[in-house]
Amino acid sequence: MLNRVRSAVAHLVSSGGGPPPRPKSPDLPNATSAPPAAPPEAPRSPPARAGSASAAPRKIAEARASFSRPTFLQLSPGGLRRADDHAGRAVQSPPDTGRRLPWSTGYAEVINAGKSRHNEDQACCEVVYVEGRRSVSGAPREPSRGQGLCFYYWGLFDGHAGGGAAEMASRLLHRHIREQLKDLPCWPLQKEVTHESLVVGAIENAFQLMDEQMARERRGHQVEGGCCALVVVYLLGKVYVANAGDSRAIIVRNGEIIPMSQEFTPETERQRLQLLGFLKPELLGGEFTHLEFPRRVQPKELGQRMLYRDQNMTGWAYKKIELEDLRFPLVCGEGKKARVMATIGVTRGLGDHNLRVCSSTLPIKPFLSCFPEVRVYDLTQYEHCPDDVLVLGTDGLWDVTSDCEVAATVDKVLSAYEPNDPSRYTALAQALVLGARGTPRDRGWRLPNNKLGSGDDISVFIIPLGGPGSYS
Amino acid sequence: MLNRVRSAVAHLVSSGGGPPPRPKSPDLPNATSAPPAAPPEAPRSPPARAGSASAAPRKIAEARASFSRPTFLQLSPGGLRRADDHAGRAVQSPPDTGRRLPWSTGYAEVINAGKSRHNEDQACCEVVYVEGRRSVSGAPREPSRGQGLCFYYWGLFDGHAGGGAAEMASRLLHRHIREQLKDLPCWPLQKEVTHESLVVGAIENAFQLMDEQMARERRGHQVEGGCCALVVVYLLGKVYVANAGDSRAIIVRNGEIIPMSQEFTPETERQRLQLLGFLKPELLGGEFTHLEFPRRVQPKELGQRMLYRDQNMTGWAYKKIELEDLRFPLVCGEGKKARVMATIGVTRGLGDHNLRVCSSTLPIKPFLSCFPEVRVYDLTQYEHCPDDVLVLGTDGLWDVTSDCEVAATVDKVLSAYEPNDPSRYTALAQALVLGARGTPRDRGWRLPNNKLGSGDDISVFIIPLGGPGSYS
Repeated sequence: MLNRVRSAVAHLVSSGGGPPPRPKSPDLPNATSAPPAAPPEAPRSPPARAGSASAAPRKIAEARASFSRPTFLQLSPGGLRRADDHAGRAVQSPPDTGRRLPWSTGYAEVINAGKSRHNEDQACCEVVYVEGRRSVSGAPREPSRGQGLCFYYWGLFDGHAGGGAAEMASRLLHRHIREQLKDLPCWPLQKEVTHESLVVGAIENAFQLMDEQMARERRGHQVEGGCCALVVVYLLGKVYVANAGDSRAIIVRNGEIIPMSQEFTPETERQRLQLLGFLKPELLGGEFTHLEFPRRVQPKELGQRMLYRDQNMTGWAYKKIELEDLRFPLVCGEGKKARVMATIGVTRGLGDHNLRVCSSTLPIKPFLSCFPEVRVYDLTQYEHCPDDVLVLGTDGLWDVTSDCEVAATVDKVLSAYEPNDPSRYTALAQALVLGARGTPRDRGWRLPNNKLGSGDDISVFIIPLGGPGSYS
Repeated sequence: MLNRVRSAVAHLVSSGGGPPPRPKSPDLPNATSAPPAAPPEAPRSPPARAGSASAAPRKIAEARASFSRPTFLQLSPGGLRRADDHAGRAVQSPPDTGRRLPWSTGYAEVINAGKSRHNEDQACCEVVYVEGRRSVSGAPREPSRGQGLCFYYWGLFDGHAGGGAAEMASRLLHRHIREQLKDLPCWPLQKEVTHESLVVGAIENAFQLMDEQMARERRGHQVEGGCCALVVVYLLGKVYVANAGDSRAIIVRNGEIIPMSQEFTPETERQRLQLLGFLKPELLGGEFTHLEFPRRVQPKELGQRMLYRDQNMTGWAYKKIELEDLRFPLVCGEGKKARVMATIGVTRGLGDHNLRVCSSTLPIKPFLSCFPEVRVYDLTQYEHCPDDVLVLGTDGLWDVTSDCEVAATVDKVLSAYEPNDPSRYTALAQALVLGARGTPRDRGWRLPNNKLGSGDDISVFIIPLGGPGSYS
């Protein structure tokens, strides 16, 4: 993701000189003293990852944030160093021995080719127990399983301008979701308020609370930068896929591809960004125009007619160029080079509270949204076979791999394994990561067709849709 | 449409006592002195419709706006009275004799059951000639047909709170589109600026200019109320369907239904409306809250937790009720009863510049958008048969008729006529209008299944997709 944030990140507002006091963490979930969210099935913390360190000096906090990899990889200090090696770019997966991930989930990751010092992707896979609480209106809560309920949770976090935000989100976002789900009522609902819409609302609120916590605690916990978040929650027969950023989720089912997310970029969110600049021109600081032009307007074109697009237009029309049209456009560039305020190439995610426009104090955060789009997939509406999977990947995968190529790899790899071999999903994740990374040649990492492989961090989850039954 | 604007319309800001001075019309197109936009093929003005009346006293202007029906109906004064009869509700169509509409288009309409004095729907069907002008950059324009180009145009305008806006739009919107299309370049285009995106932009701009003209000239021309606008442009092999409001367009092609528009209502545009209220709280005047609750919040619930939705949420979550949550919700009600600021049930269209919240001076126009959604259908990608049609209808049709029922009627009526019988499309339009109106019984107009028929104005265009070849 680093390549999607321009050098402007060097202008991040510093959090000060000496070790700042740790803020008193308000409610659960918090960054320091939260009890483990996962039930006993959850993997243990690796040795390299310090536990709670409520009075840790700044250096320890930085080191922890910089080097951590997902706990379920169970990396030793030596393994952690190998995972951090840009030259070898060894693919990492959970060990064959030891406890498998829930649902026999497959996972693989690889560090970038040198664009950032550490792997700024993070991942989380947990079974989360939600303890019910008494309802808001005083009615007793009727839990669906004993005294509470469980949800399954997978999260991919693609950091930029530092790994802190992704690391914090990977540790805490599911706890925010758990808190929100404590309110889930079981009695008849009003109006169009369905059970599903409450889970969606809980996830949406959790993203916002996570973002607010990052803003609150960014000084104390070195939450530099920001991250995209792609999260899956399985609860009561339904899969909720929540995406804020440019990661992607697809279901491959009997060879068919079902998109489960959309990417949020300056191009896909042009109209939202322009509308905000139009309604709140003070956010543009007199430096940018909310209008879009096919190319940068030249001073000599003042008074001439030129094509433009406003916030409420999908087509192009003509306008007479005025003085303020000479400002830099709020949204510029195309494809992977599209940028908001010439700085950031992704428009949703968590963090980025300190991000400023290059050579300016203008904040960019007001244009970024922390709200995910949530899509729902009903697992009970289809009888899934062991080859039906939900694939989650950071943009490192999708930049060089199409949906169809992923579906072909799903078919190829899974058909080489017995349907009941639980290692097949990890093998598939590894194959996808390897296929996107390529092999080292004279001029960089190359794919078999000699095109450039992805030099980005690459992380992939493979979730078999056989459901909780496949959980070992 | 009248039923979708509450009694608040009685609070429309009056345009003053005596006959106001007519504003000097600025550029073409304007309301008073525009030359005919249509080529010689266009139907003539009916006797009942006065021509330009630049110094007409107020009474004449009102009478013209109140009583006019589409020129192509060629109604005599007696026919106009019959078309205006709420008791008989006779279905109106262009006469069999005389010039047929372009493309053998079918049309039928019927007045409401008494909800408003006159039929507030309006319609227009024209062939419009666009004269090229020299390009903005000085390059010579290369017209596609001789010195210019032609487009085919159909428009349905569903007025509310008076017929003035619909009447004005039906006379002028295609002229605004013509003006915008004069800029259509024929040389290679930059970036993602396609020919198609320029036509879309031209239509979008034309809607905005039409709306601005209504604001400018509303006093002089009695443009009371507002209107939904559903417009079709055929140009160079493509059909552009532009919709702002709650009319609907579908294509019925070999029995398949292809939606060509979406409705814009307080429910479908909830998030846009809430975002505006959130970013510009001054527009809510301290009287409304931009948050949505499943039901009206009671003062005794202060401090309790309740379900809510904010502008960036699709699901529901909980919040603690505060004092300002007791305000009336910006968006309330469900289905056909959904309202913005308790007043209007449609969120896009033209006009409504004087609309105020009931018992308040708070303007509603800032929440209404004049921008259409434009969908494009490439006529050349499919070999259409004479039974493939584009159906346009105001909400009077769709309130009581589903897409599938319309498709069934298309099949039933067209199969009863020879494929080359040009009257079959008018027969189809009449069948649809009759089917939505029903027949008078003891308690109102009833459908065969005894459900209530539509008491609204109903207007339907049937456009055969055989293309300009079928134009007689």
